Amino acid sequence: MKSQLKKIAIVGASGYSGEELVRLLLSHPHAELTAVTSRQYAGQTLARVFPRFASHPRAKELRFSEPKPELLAKQAGLVFLALPHGVAAEYAVPLLRAGVTVIDLSADFRVKSAAVYREFYGHDHPAPELLAKAVYGLPEIYRAEIRKASLIASPGCYPTSILLPTIPLLKAGLVRPAGIIADSLSGVSGAGRKAEREYLFVECNESARPYGIPKHRHLSEIEQELSFAAGTPVIIQFTPHLIPASRGILTTLYLDLKKPFANAAEMFVLTGQISECYQKAYGREPFVRLLEGKELPDTKNVVGTNVIEIAWRLDPRTGRLIVMSAEDNLTKGASGQAVQSMNLRCGIPETAGLV
Amino acid sequence: MKSQLKKIAIVGASGYSGEELVRLLLSHPHAELTAVTSRQYAGQTLARVFPRFASHPRAKELRFSEPKPELLAKQAGLVFLALPHGVAAEYAVPLLRAGVTVIDLSADFRVKSAAVYREFYGHDHPAPELLAKAVYGLPEIYRAEIRKASLIASPGCYPTSILLPTIPLLKAGLVRPAGIIADSLSGVSGAGRKAEREYLFVECNESARPYGIPKHRHLSEIEQELSFAAGTPVIIQFTPHLIPASRGILTTLYLDLKKPFANAAEMFVLTGQISECYQKAYGREPFVRLLEGKELPDTKNVVGTNVIEIAWRLDPRTGRLIVMSAEDNLTKGASGQAVQSMNLRCGIPETAGLV
Amino acid sequence: MKSQLKKIAIVGASGYSGEELVRLLLSHPHAELTAVTSRQYAGQTLARVFPRFASHPRAKELRFSEPKPELLAKQAGLVFLALPHGVAAEYAVPLLRAGVTVIDLSADFRVKSAAVYREFYGHDHPAPELLAKAVYGLPEIYRAEIRKASLIASPGCYPTSILLPTIPLLKAGLVRPAGIIADSLSGVSGAGRKAEREYLFVECNESARPYGIPKHRHLSEIEQELSFAAGTPVIIQFTPHLIPASRGILTTLYLDLKKPFANAAEMFVLTGQISECYQKAYGREPFVRLLEGKELPDTKNVVGTNVIEIAWRLDPRTGRLIVMSAEDNLTKGASGQAVQSMNLRCGIPETAGLV
Amino acid sequence: MKSQLKKIAIVGASGYSGEELVRLLLSHPHAELTAVTSRQYAGQTLARVFPRFASHPRAKELRFSEPKPELLAKQAGLVFLALPHGVAAEYAVPLLRAGVTVIDLSADFRVKSAAVYREFYGHDHPAPELLAKAVYGLPEIYRAEIRKASLIASPGCYPTSILLPTIPLLKAGLVRPAGIIADSLSGVSGAGRKAEREYLFVECNESARPYGIPKHRHLSEIEQELSFAAGTPVIIQFTPHLIPASRGILTTLYLDLKKPFANAAEMFVLTGQISECYQKAYGREPFVRLLEGKELPDTKNVVGTNVIEIAWRLDPRTGRLIVMSAEDNLTKGASGQAVQSMNLRCGIPETAGLV
Repeated sequence: MKSQLKKIAIVGASGYSGEELVRLLLSHPHAELTAVTSRQYAGQTLARVFPRFASHPRAKELRFSEPKPELLAKQAGLVFLALPHGVAAEYAVPLLRAGVTVIDLSADFRVKSAAVYREFYGHDHPAPELLAKAVYGLPEIYRAEIRKASLIASPGCYPTSILLPTIPLLKAGLVRPAGIIADSLSGVSGAGRKAEREYLFVECNESARPYGIPKHRHLSEIEQELSFAAGTPVIIQFTPHLIPASRGILTTLYLDLKKPFANAAEMFVLTGQISECYQKAYGREPFVRLLEGKELPDTKNVVGTNVIEIAWRLDPRTGRLIVMSAEDNLTKGASGQAVQSMNLRCGIPETAGLV
Repeated sequence: MKSQLKKIAIVGASGYSGEELVRLLLSHPHAELTAVTSRQYAGQTLARVFPRFASHPRAKELRFSEPKPELLAKQAGLVFLALPHGVAAEYAVPLLRAGVTVIDLSADFRVKSAAVYREFYGHDHPAPELLAKAVYGLPEIYRAEIRKASLIASPGCYPTSILLPTIPLLKAGLVRPAGIIADSLSGVSGAGRKAEREYLFVECNESARPYGIPKHRHLSEIEQELSFAAGTPVIIQFTPHLIPASRGILTTLYLDLKKPFANAAEMFVLTGQISECYQKAYGREPFVRLLEGKELPDTKNVVGTNVIEIAWRLDPRTGRLIVMSAEDNLTKGASGQAVQSMNLRCGIPETAGLV
Repeated sequence: MKSQLKKIAIVGASGYSGEELVRLLLSHPHAELTAVTSRQYAGQTLARVFPRFASHPRAKELRFSEPKPELLAKQAGLVFLALPHGVAAEYAVPLLRAGVTVIDLSADFRVKSAAVYREFYGHDHPAPELLAKAVYGLPEIYRAEIRKASLIASPGCYPTSILLPTIPLLKAGLVRPAGIIADSLSGVSGAGRKAEREYLFVECNESARPYGIPKHRHLSEIEQELSFAAGTPVIIQFTPHLIPASRGILTTLYLDLKKPFANAAEMFVLTGQISECYQKAYGREPFVRLLEGKELPDTKNVVGTNVIEIAWRLDPRTGRLIVMSAEDNLTKGASGQAVQSMNLRCGIPETAGLV
Repeated sequence: MKSQLKKIAIVGASGYSGEELVRLLLSHPHAELTAVTSRQYAGQTLARVFPRFASHPRAKELRFSEPKPELLAKQAGLVFLALPHGVAAEYAVPLLRAGVTVIDLSADFRVKSAAVYREFYGHDHPAPELLAKAVYGLPEIYRAEIRKASLIASPGCYPTSILLPTIPLLKAGLVRPAGIIADSLSGVSGAGRKAEREYLFVECNESARPYGIPKHRHLSEIEQELSFAAGTPVIIQFTPHLIPASRGILTTLYLDLKKPFANAAEMFVLTGQISECYQKAYGREPFVRLLEGKELPDTKNVVGTNVIEIAWRLDPRTGRLIVMSAEDNLTKGASGQAVQSMNLRCGIPETAGLV
């Protein structure tokens, strides 16, 4: 059976997303990790760099290498790019040319418009011709497209936590596209494995703080996807906060209803419609958990899993719909979702290696 | 000088707010702690129950006693009530009758309307005649009234973090009273020192979760005070979250402007107006820090202090005003604020014992 | 193949060890969880009580039941007991009589001597006749016995973290049986899911404290097993500490060498002997990781795994041997180890469900 | 009274120890902070760099400056050096020459022997002539010398946590100088405010790890002071560990008794002797808390204070004495202790600004 394993490589495997990819792929029943690259750790084994994987036989033998596209194209049929913003094109272009499928975990190929990219990222896109080709790797929304994509732009933690709860409501016309607010709390691993003072233990412990407001870069892709769902341009308010946890994203969404409810009877009807909307969208999704009864999302329930929890409440006092989601920023919010796309692309069961 | 110290007692001094009151009053230059009560610890010294104060001479001699109003009335001229919801009246009524000033840290006397109290707390108010008499103990708003009050209903952490940033804007007519959203993150000490499973270390560590939505009890007093400021009934959206920190509240407020701005010039004018509004309201307040430039609130900057940090941003994309505040839930959000009121009431410098 | 799955039950599945057993057994390739008991949660599904498992199909259908030995004997061929100290006999006696294999995670059957049990636990053992029958479930030491045992007394977190690093050295006669010191740091989950004030988030966060010294109950089994290894009675010093982490045990051991080294040459020889001793004992063990070079144990490398990391240093200044170990207190220190024993007992590959 | 304030400067005020010095000195009743230096923050106010002090009037006006000894000599009569290891001499030499009192928080002047310094620090001491002149700034041991010292080498967190509990026992001849073991747990602020990967939140959270064994640099001064106390050369075993807390040191000491006890009666006598020894040494010390009854040290009781908690237990099973201490690594373990020395040196009450 060994010969049927998909050969997979990871470029930039030394960050937190890269490490999570390694974790998932080492124990994936249909994948074989054939190359991992890292300039910093080139020559060292996975076992040495990540002691937590040291008991895995593959981790003892596989060594980090310098990232060379031409070599990677021989080693793997599918390559994950887990690189900082702005450098994915350097690898994606030659790999795609060589016929390799690319799943990029950065934001580099998520936006369709080169102009929007320039507005939010402050420089021209290095490979604008690939933007149209790239498929936005949100399996619950673009499953069919992902199955055939050669370049998958896998969404990150904030977009996933906002898009999955909101898109079905917009598509169903239940909420207004205007006035949406997303308030998110992120664990510190979301900042990456950078040695910067503001992410030191002492600076993050016993600290809660907003940052990057009011125009966070990921708004570009969030608004793009919400606009597709709504069929009209959508602009949202987004406030990320850093909290003293290693992992997890908790997002609270404030939504206005398209048809406000005036009394308990109308609220009852609307409750049924929202419930049905979510059931239809996600009732059979393996990685979306629609909470029931009094349950509310809690990041500790999803850490280490590829699951996103979603709950919602209608507030009869304000007439608003509150939707909350919880996910692991490194799994459903990054590497788990990327593996989910890999499974789809490779014709493997979608949940393989993720449960 | 000893004879001029104010004699102060604390009823219910064994919880987190009570402990913080003890901390502040033990080192207060104008106060003498003459009695602390706790059924559970009656007979034990402060030093024994709270080892962190053990080096303080007063903590070595002062013992917890059973709470008896008639005795307290002889021991102190001012009594803090740091009790769970619903039992303050039992002490407030006899103490007030005996001429003792009462500062209540619970929510029992914060609402003016007995009907609103019943709606939010589910039972009749035990001493409705006191509701009109009580002064809402937010010194920045009710300084003059606090100076003469016999019963001060000292506001808690969420109300303080929401009211102080919002009231000046409403009073100035800069923001709309409708549609206000307050999204708050609280450290676990906000839940009190209750031995409940959901507040165990393992249940809170690496966890972020909303709770108590959509109708938190403290909305009753928050909306009351916002309505006073706006001169019209105000209903807000409020979502509290629990995060893995011991102390601190971070609140993010989403506000609609009364007069939306249409371009950069109007935004510039509005920026000046908001800045001026806050400067006028708080520029000389010792415990309100208006952040400037790129600074954003961070709970770690205010933990252990009586300061609330406030920052704001206009978002030209959404037309909204975002205001953020950070405070220590046990100090400015509870006991520090109560001591601030005590200082005002006793004719002591307002910042005594708080800097 | 379904018919070949081992039918397994867990008595007392609602604590942290029980939850970890559920986690491991739900995804175990050769086991089928047929019953989980909990008085508190009887009637509720696993999915409801433990949202983190909610995506697992089995968790959606399996409901907690009241613990009834006669029923369990029909439902399972092997039963884990994850109960508080002192009540295991109540289930073990009837289950064993009915021919069911029992793996007990409590300390109830770990000590061979009823007198030692009485000395350390303060009451007579309820089923002393079973003490001789029980096998101490440390697979690396008692693999052969575990394969045939009907009652396995699976060791807990502190004993495992001390015994595995020390036993080979004692057996090889490299260290003196006298004067051993074990200094351990434990995450808070080691205290169980009890709603007690001292384990609240606020009481554990930013706190480091020793407890239970100098005569911790688990010394009874630790010294029993060290005495077996040394062939002479061993008494050790053991100091547990609580640190602000959810999981993990870090143990530092101070050992005196049987033959002290007098110079660099002798130290070199001894280094080789210790290295060889550990290699011989654990070089092929799947769950013992002998660290090399400059590596030192770190609980974050083993959390969630069944691995124990071991490193050691000879100190030429003091002539002592320092050995350090790290493990997950709930996995190798509890439920993972119990599943390892289950695998051995059932003739399944020892690492099944644990990698 | 302003004219009588002592003029104080801090060189290297931007690290954690420097920040703690700022905190203590801003509210010190007899000190005036006249200069703070930091190359990185030169030109910025204290209020800007440390928002937590922003409400203090002095913090709003005092600006960081470049460190220039000749200028500092004019600005202050006493200068604290809170610099990394190895550079203190550069400032101490000219400041002392100019008649300024210097309190150095680094390890640079703590060792008496230039040879020992070279052995442990790997390079020649830059100002060996000052070593004899420097007084080891442990007030409880060298109070008289500190009062007259011009150069005070203020001990750090590990040495303080080990020396204070051990010195009285050695001086009284109660414990053996040989075989001492110190096992310490430190919060992450002990590593300083360096932007290094291993101190990132995600790398420290949920992690417990030993480091720097077996020959930590601070052993040089620890053993020097223990040797003075014992009147004979002392070599100890020392194992530091990093735990996920911001502040605090918890040290557990394992000591052998000079005269072992053979029975309960002898243990009773010895208990009295140890108790008397500690009472005599520290019974009237304002910053040493000798715990009684069942109390054990807990870092959370001392964080933010200048207190060290000490408790001890005789173990009748092993014949050993276990002594435990807890302190705040940045206060009694660094800056608080340095201010205590300043008070002594300046003829101010020893506890001024520290209670």
